[in-house]
Amino acid sequence: MRKVGDVGWLDKPEPQCGPLDAVIRPTIVAPCTSDVRVAAGWAAPRTDRILGHEAVGEIVQVGELVTRFKVGNLVAVPCVTPDWLAPGVQRPRTVGHDTEEEGSFKFVGYKDGVMAELAHVNQADANLALIPDGVTPEAALMATDMMPTGLRGAEAADIQFGETVVVIGIGPVGLMAVAGAVLRGAGRVVAVGGRDVTCKVALEYGATDIVRHSSDADELTAQILQCAPDVDKVIVAGGDAATLAAAVRIVKPGGIVSNINFYDQAASLTMPLVDWGLGMADKDIRGTFCPGGGAQLARLLQLIKHGRIDPTKLITHRLQGMDALPEAFDLMSQKPPDLIKPIVYFD
Amino acid sequence: MRKVGDVGWLDKPEPQCGPLDAVIRPTIVAPCTSDVRVAAGWAAPRTDRILGHEAVGEIVQVGELVTRFKVGNLVAVPCVTPDWLAPGVQRPRTVGHDTEEEGSFKFVGYKDGVMAELAHVNQADANLALIPDGVTPEAALMATDMMPTGLRGAEAADIQFGETVVVIGIGPVGLMAVAGAVLRGAGRVVAVGGRDVTCKVALEYGATDIVRHSSDADELTAQILQCAPDVDKVIVAGGDAATLAAAVRIVKPGGIVSNINFYDQAASLTMPLVDWGLGMADKDIRGTFCPGGGAQLARLLQLIKHGRIDPTKLITHRLQGMDALPEAFDLMSQKPPDLIKPIVYFD
Amino acid sequence: MRKVGDVGWLDKPEPQCGPLDAVIRPTIVAPCTSDVRVAAGWAAPRTDRILGHEAVGEIVQVGELVTRFKVGNLVAVPCVTPDWLAPGVQRPRTVGHDTEEEGSFKFVGYKDGVMAELAHVNQADANLALIPDGVTPEAALMATDMMPTGLRGAEAADIQFGETVVVIGIGPVGLMAVAGAVLRGAGRVVAVGGRDVTCKVALEYGATDIVRHSSDADELTAQILQCAPDVDKVIVAGGDAATLAAAVRIVKPGGIVSNINFYDQAASLTMPLVDWGLGMADKDIRGTFCPGGGAQLARLLQLIKHGRIDPTKLITHRLQGMDALPEAFDLMSQKPPDLIKPIVYFD
Amino acid sequence: MRKVGDVGWLDKPEPQCGPLDAVIRPTIVAPCTSDVRVAAGWAAPRTDRILGHEAVGEIVQVGELVTRFKVGNLVAVPCVTPDWLAPGVQRPRTVGHDTEEEGSFKFVGYKDGVMAELAHVNQADANLALIPDGVTPEAALMATDMMPTGLRGAEAADIQFGETVVVIGIGPVGLMAVAGAVLRGAGRVVAVGGRDVTCKVALEYGATDIVRHSSDADELTAQILQCAPDVDKVIVAGGDAATLAAAVRIVKPGGIVSNINFYDQAASLTMPLVDWGLGMADKDIRGTFCPGGGAQLARLLQLIKHGRIDPTKLITHRLQGMDALPEAFDLMSQKPPDLIKPIVYFD
Repeated sequence: MRKVGDVGWLDKPEPQCGPLDAVIRPTIVAPCTSDVRVAAGWAAPRTDRILGHEAVGEIVQVGELVTRFKVGNLVAVPCVTPDWLAPGVQRPRTVGHDTEEEGSFKFVGYKDGVMAELAHVNQADANLALIPDGVTPEAALMATDMMPTGLRGAEAADIQFGETVVVIGIGPVGLMAVAGAVLRGAGRVVAVGGRDVTCKVALEYGATDIVRHSSDADELTAQILQCAPDVDKVIVAGGDAATLAAAVRIVKPGGIVSNINFYDQAASLTMPLVDWGLGMADKDIRGTFCPGGGAQLARLLQLIKHGRIDPTKLITHRLQGMDALPEAFDLMSQKPPDLIKPIVYFD
Repeated sequence: MRKVGDVGWLDKPEPQCGPLDAVIRPTIVAPCTSDVRVAAGWAAPRTDRILGHEAVGEIVQVGELVTRFKVGNLVAVPCVTPDWLAPGVQRPRTVGHDTEEEGSFKFVGYKDGVMAELAHVNQADANLALIPDGVTPEAALMATDMMPTGLRGAEAADIQFGETVVVIGIGPVGLMAVAGAVLRGAGRVVAVGGRDVTCKVALEYGATDIVRHSSDADELTAQILQCAPDVDKVIVAGGDAATLAAAVRIVKPGGIVSNINFYDQAASLTMPLVDWGLGMADKDIRGTFCPGGGAQLARLLQLIKHGRIDPTKLITHRLQGMDALPEAFDLMSQKPPDLIKPIVYFD
Repeated sequence: MRKVGDVGWLDKPEPQCGPLDAVIRPTIVAPCTSDVRVAAGWAAPRTDRILGHEAVGEIVQVGELVTRFKVGNLVAVPCVTPDWLAPGVQRPRTVGHDTEEEGSFKFVGYKDGVMAELAHVNQADANLALIPDGVTPEAALMATDMMPTGLRGAEAADIQFGETVVVIGIGPVGLMAVAGAVLRGAGRVVAVGGRDVTCKVALEYGATDIVRHSSDADELTAQILQCAPDVDKVIVAGGDAATLAAAVRIVKPGGIVSNINFYDQAASLTMPLVDWGLGMADKDIRGTFCPGGGAQLARLLQLIKHGRIDPTKLITHRLQGMDALPEAFDLMSQKPPDLIKPIVYFD
Repeated sequence: MRKVGDVGWLDKPEPQCGPLDAVIRPTIVAPCTSDVRVAAGWAAPRTDRILGHEAVGEIVQVGELVTRFKVGNLVAVPCVTPDWLAPGVQRPRTVGHDTEEEGSFKFVGYKDGVMAELAHVNQADANLALIPDGVTPEAALMATDMMPTGLRGAEAADIQFGETVVVIGIGPVGLMAVAGAVLRGAGRVVAVGGRDVTCKVALEYGATDIVRHSSDADELTAQILQCAPDVDKVIVAGGDAATLAAAVRIVKPGGIVSNINFYDQAASLTMPLVDWGLGMADKDIRGTFCPGGGAQLARLLQLIKHGRIDPTKLITHRLQGMDALPEAFDLMSQKPPDLIKPIVYFD
């Protein structure tokens, strides 16, 4: 990313490795919709910034204070890598906001990302995870952002055994939210999507009903309620501000809307307060951020290892070589009918 | 209330007492802002409905299945009296919504209220509380709606020791939210109000800073942040939809906006999503309803009995006789400078 | 049960149906280990009390205040049927203790149980659940006690994605705890059992490792820690007081021991406090009771309907006719190698 | 501490300051009962270890990676200073156990304590707190261990508005638990103590009833229940294993026993399981550890600054000069009638 709207190659010096840090050589990376959105200027504009925040790789250098990892380790890198010495991480709800809002999102947000020959990881001991036996690098790659974000949506929805959960938007993150809802004990799970390929995988991850996405929020609302009149929780993983408003409308009193969608900085929510029970319906609206750090990534890798979830179903396109990055980026921008998630092998 | 905009006296037959129910003779009642708002048509319109949902009184009749109360008991009546045999009450977040949204709000919502010679209470065993020794009837009256709603605002804000809490709107419910924030362990408590009388009582309840309310949301935001740049939690107990949007703006990442305000059914929230961190700031927006039932009312009476809170500071006007009801209602509508809460003695 | 140690047939008058109640004709029942334990005098002794608290059946009579059920409905009856007008149910943690400890356990505890031609259900509207399409009566029967108790064990363990959970004791309740741990997102699940039949079903429910039960607590501890050195949570669903002490020892700091086992009233826990970190290891010991009521039972039936769990794997023996009750009771007492759970068809 | 049972002066080289660390010159310190217990061999024995983990002081050196503090800052040092780069701190319940049980207790546990001319603080940015205007150094000193441990006891008891809380043991930590229970919204608070001086201060911190401690657990139980028959929560801040068993007995079903007491490593809990409802009374037993880190300490200092709590009421003895340390240590060992907490000024 050279500037908003202009993506291409950048020549950069090698990253410096501080005493707590590591430098890794990415071996597989995946572009994310949020890379595309950042490049399009949805968030604060950046210039001359390397994109990418999903990678597995090999450690090529560690700082002198690093004790838990060494050169040669094959590791997964979480997309959110907090500064664990900052006050924000000392409370559960602010781990993603170490010194300021989304401050723990270092790649792209504050420094170059992982779509590069070498990438810098701050506080390696706290922010990396070894890939255990029984987990493929491709599966581990899906655990760096898609899985934690989707599963966080399910966690924030505070799902109780047997509840009805609607997931609106079933791109790769939404599909992980479907799987996450099942793994928290949901009964009926309604997935709202627009493409055959994602609807098919949603059913494989445990969705019981599919509703086709409609850009008309009233129509969408009507279709969901016809399918499931009694909605305990909604996870919003796609759409725009009108989708969020529709989610508040369809959830029942005492319910929770758990948002894991990323909105354009120009977006504005407009919502009739009657849909929110005039303030008195005990409907929570939660907007959560992908949890960070190596310890939670290690737990997600245990979920994969023990067969609870297979995130490689998300991978529809496998490209070879760093030269294939532009193609992968284009795929993520254009979303052809058969795409869920592309990955790029650097080796 | 005869119809929207027309409030006056109604002649009604005596209430029937079902086998689980009680009939009480109110001895002191208090009009509530929500009575005024219902009469003005903010919620679904009602006709020929007796208003009022805050009362203490004497039991004059109990149904044959009632075991815990008897005729002659002096009791407090919570404003929310759920049907405890309905499925909604079997989960903590839906106690107020027994069969439908706000279904547990029986007075005014589904039947005549308590500004009457006699009033019906459903499921007396579950919904009444004896007034213990050491608690005055006036204090108990404040525990039927003002205290549980205000304290619920503090509970939903999930306050941790030493946090900074802003309470916007310090009518009687907001003042109880100030006291509730202190009783959950807040450090700095900023109260936003517009009248000297409420600001004075806010300080007595433990507010550390006062900000004068401004109808300009930008100015209000600036003033609050100048006073307290690092706001952990906001309790919204007054204002309009723009106030709610301002609350989301000022709360820091990981924070909670806890709403106990009741909005006009014509109101609509318009909020730039950048104020909500583009969906990723871990800012919760919670809209809660006053908890109901006799057991929680009994616990609030213990708070009063043991001197943790003195809700009678809210009572600024004491009127005598049922004939004074119109005057009390007018006071609540017009909010003269010296008013917080009027009460009316029927005896 | 005629008295402690003496079980046989009792002639009793037909149950009286109060205005809120129902009388059902059980069509399938299941004896429970706790029936056997009550008969053996583990709890307070009863005389001339009909046993049994797991039943599905047909409603033959409803009280005049019942609105949600009618004669002829096929229903599941939860083993715990609180008095929803008592204060205890107004708080989540005391639903099982409506007026006193375990007061919500009406069958056997306070009145005749369901191993009878007719059985009385208090507060039918709140305590019964219709059996939905797609759920067999046998599956619904398993949702009256085995499923809610086992799943409650998993809930109380507060399992986070990817955690390692040990379930000690895999009788029918423990097997449901295994399934419940998987449905809350556990990674590795170690099941500790003594019989081939239960170990086999544990693996089908998602256990990843099997440890054979040892009556020597030190040996048991060593075997579990060899299999899983880092135990986040332990669910105790069998064994004696020494098993509970062993669970505290093996769980890591910050962990939870969730007990769903029922102990002899003569039992005493002896535990070196060094195993509990001298009081400072943040190890919780929770002893929970099966949740009651119709609403949560209805949610469990949704779990079955949507294929999240198949509790009929527990049923190893199907007997025909009320005359087979003694045989079923004997099976439950003697636990032959091929038994998990017997059921008895009355029709 | 030279070895178990032998306490005296030690000559040690100056502490080395790592790149993330700081060295402070303690200006006021306080001995703690746990220093006395460690010296007596209650925990794992240490040799040639400087005692003390409660200090305020001046920074005399900072490592080159420290960004938030500088030489000359007046700071409070929490008694628990986790390694924030270790995996344990990435979950709320294990912050005190960074790499192993109680691993975050660095002073005395892993290195020399603060009763010295100079003391080493690991990860200064994460583990120190500036003393704000309006907070005296003496008050800040009480916030390093007494306040966080006592208030943690109240937090872990999950107190709801109006509940009845019993605090057993009202040494300085128990007194902070009394104040903490009030600041979480308790109604009746029963303090169990043995000395006039602590009983008097307990009343000042909001206790409503005093019960005199008895070493006979049955008598103690009877006295507490006579005073408060309906106990929601118990905080155990003193006594022995029999006290813990008594706490389980007196708490009602659905209640919580929150332990902040430190037991002898030879102690063993013996408890009839009937007191624990045979496993089914929903009585939690929680053993928690003082939370660590600079951010929570900073919040406690806000509580003091805003007048919510005055921990200097604990300070009964003020000694001057490092030479007074043996006298302070003796006071803490012998607990004369007028002692709550001694402090020692080094300046």
